[in-house]
Amino acid sequence: MDTPEKKILAAYKKQGARIGTRAKARLKSARDFSLWYTPGVGTASGHLSKHPEDARKMSVKGNSVAIVSDGSAVLGLGDIGAYGALPVMEGKALIFREMAGIDAWPLVLDTQDADDIVRIVKAIAPNFGGINLEDIAAPKCFDIENRLAAELDIPVMHDDQHGTAIVALAGLMNACKVVKKKLGTLRVAISGAGAAGAAIAKLLAAAGVRDIVVLDRSGIIVPGRAGGLNASKQELARITNPRKLAGGLHEAMAGADAFIGVSGKGILAAEHLKLMAPRSIVFALANPVPEIMPREAHAAGAAVVATGRSDFPNQLNNALAYPGIFRGALDKGITKITQDTKLRAAKALAGLVSKPTADKIIPGLLDKRVVAAVAKSVR
Amino acid sequence: MDTPEKKILAAYKKQGARIGTRAKARLKSARDFSLWYTPGVGTASGHLSKHPEDARKMSVKGNSVAIVSDGSAVLGLGDIGAYGALPVMEGKALIFREMAGIDAWPLVLDTQDADDIVRIVKAIAPNFGGINLEDIAAPKCFDIENRLAAELDIPVMHDDQHGTAIVALAGLMNACKVVKKKLGTLRVAISGAGAAGAAIAKLLAAAGVRDIVVLDRSGIIVPGRAGGLNASKQELARITNPRKLAGGLHEAMAGADAFIGVSGKGILAAEHLKLMAPRSIVFALANPVPEIMPREAHAAGAAVVATGRSDFPNQLNNALAYPGIFRGALDKGITKITQDTKLRAAKALAGLVSKPTADKIIPGLLDKRVVAAVAKSVR
Repeated sequence: MDTPEKKILAAYKKQGARIGTRAKARLKSARDFSLWYTPGVGTASGHLSKHPEDARKMSVKGNSVAIVSDGSAVLGLGDIGAYGALPVMEGKALIFREMAGIDAWPLVLDTQDADDIVRIVKAIAPNFGGINLEDIAAPKCFDIENRLAAELDIPVMHDDQHGTAIVALAGLMNACKVVKKKLGTLRVAISGAGAAGAAIAKLLAAAGVRDIVVLDRSGIIVPGRAGGLNASKQELARITNPRKLAGGLHEAMAGADAFIGVSGKGILAAEHLKLMAPRSIVFALANPVPEIMPREAHAAGAAVVATGRSDFPNQLNNALAYPGIFRGALDKGITKITQDTKLRAAKALAGLVSKPTADKIIPGLLDKRVVAAVAKSVR
Repeated sequence: MDTPEKKILAAYKKQGARIGTRAKARLKSARDFSLWYTPGVGTASGHLSKHPEDARKMSVKGNSVAIVSDGSAVLGLGDIGAYGALPVMEGKALIFREMAGIDAWPLVLDTQDADDIVRIVKAIAPNFGGINLEDIAAPKCFDIENRLAAELDIPVMHDDQHGTAIVALAGLMNACKVVKKKLGTLRVAISGAGAAGAAIAKLLAAAGVRDIVVLDRSGIIVPGRAGGLNASKQELARITNPRKLAGGLHEAMAGADAFIGVSGKGILAAEHLKLMAPRSIVFALANPVPEIMPREAHAAGAAVVATGRSDFPNQLNNALAYPGIFRGALDKGITKITQDTKLRAAKALAGLVSKPTADKIIPGLLDKRVVAAVAKSVR
């Protein structure tokens, strides 16, 4: 019998491309060619060379997003390069099209140098109304995003950071209602201090969560930790861990109300969950294989469990955030995605579930209201 | 009353984008999300990271072309930059889609440095099955194309050179039939020694035309010309001008059987045409405004007149060549566009007009047979 992997691979080979182009203008008559190609296009070109600000109105730029990755941190698979990243970016282009009506194109880059990536994205920016950075490893992803956001006049969002953070916060808001705890007094352990972990910690702090403990491979992040901390982790040490915990997963989980994993498959065991406070919340978001499988987490006492996958309840997937964020930014000509944008998007998402339950803390990917609600929240 | 330019601009502003994306895979159910997004996409990513050669079969790469320009030589408008070039590239994306079923995306670059352009195109190459370079100024276009063709394993074609040359040769073959002259004994004057002029001269020579005279802004290209010649023009001096003519347009046109203009609007006057041999052929291909308008050329005695425009008979437009060239290359996995590829394509194009007349030396852009015939010729 075929393994599921073999079946999936066969489906991709049979499918070929998942995204292609579509003509939006007619090209049937000589008149169409005269207008949309030569000589008419010369008039449009002459105009845009003098008025580039009209490109949004007169070209593909008005509704397009580049999905850019260097393949250095793909899903839970790690550094698998440009070709490894291509299926993910193409899947996102499909989601942008089907969920938000956005014309997004996959652009994996055959370079992993931060300066190169910045230079390339700046050079291709005229074609696009937004830049979705994806699956770029920390800490360089912070620098790349900051530089591009500062230098470009279109929205730039590293989805692994902010898409994940928005959805995690939305899920946590509703999970709190289910377990009858308050966001402000929650103890949260975050496993993973890369792109997603850092952004979740910062957004949760901005949302009022006061006791956040972040772990990386070397354990809990605390000021003065042996071996030193890079700039991003120094910032985390400053804004998290008010009890100045040190140690590892065991110490972080003791008494925690919520665990948010954006680290690696299977790192969490039943014994860790048993250390948590009663009515615990477990978000095991590593993709495609979570930190702990939902069945096992529930068996170990978790009250609310979520993953990033489509095949379990409570899918905390970025796809709930990025289509609406870019839809809103494109429609309203918004050029910066701020912390306030993300807080508002998380509240909009959470608000779509009127009575959260353990199996329903977040709207589903198929919920048609999601993109409109998130887009509406952007301003 | 509105000028035509105002009407065209209004049409572009009303239209907005002329190209967008289209979903090729279904994304309607949770199962679709599981397969085409997470967790299924992880299997495809893992596979492509180890077997990048399968990207053609399993991704957008199999049917996609990047249309790359730095905006340094746009139509007859010159160096008008990335935003100026964008409408042309988007128009080409529309043509690739509607004429050849190819998923092409415009990629204007906000840099005009040859090394930068080469680095960027190499970095984005994994996403595409072919690279269509467009509207890049000579002589750097020669270097950029040569380096990319040597270093990438997908077809790279600078359309201003080779698309133009293929179509000009096809037109000349049929024009010869109309005026009852032979290609081998034709005297041809080419005005313009940039990308198009150089490529036309080389392809005509490869097709057996023995007496070609090329002019640039400084006059006829001849060995030892005062002021020196760049590398590209030295090569032209070597392979053209067997009579070692010197001087300007007057000298080049005296006794010429054919004029091919890829230079600038209105440079040709009736007095120049009167210097030509009887039954003369005039291809005034400058776009959007030709070297001489067809009515004026006929009045001055030209037997066959062609332009690059959609609104006159005999449209010698690259759009007759590039969709079929890339269609053939993508379908057959051909990675290099050679001089033989171009000769075969020109013959295939010319062969579609069974009885050429003064007003019909080339198939029209709306002729459904064109792409298939050119694609079939590629091998």
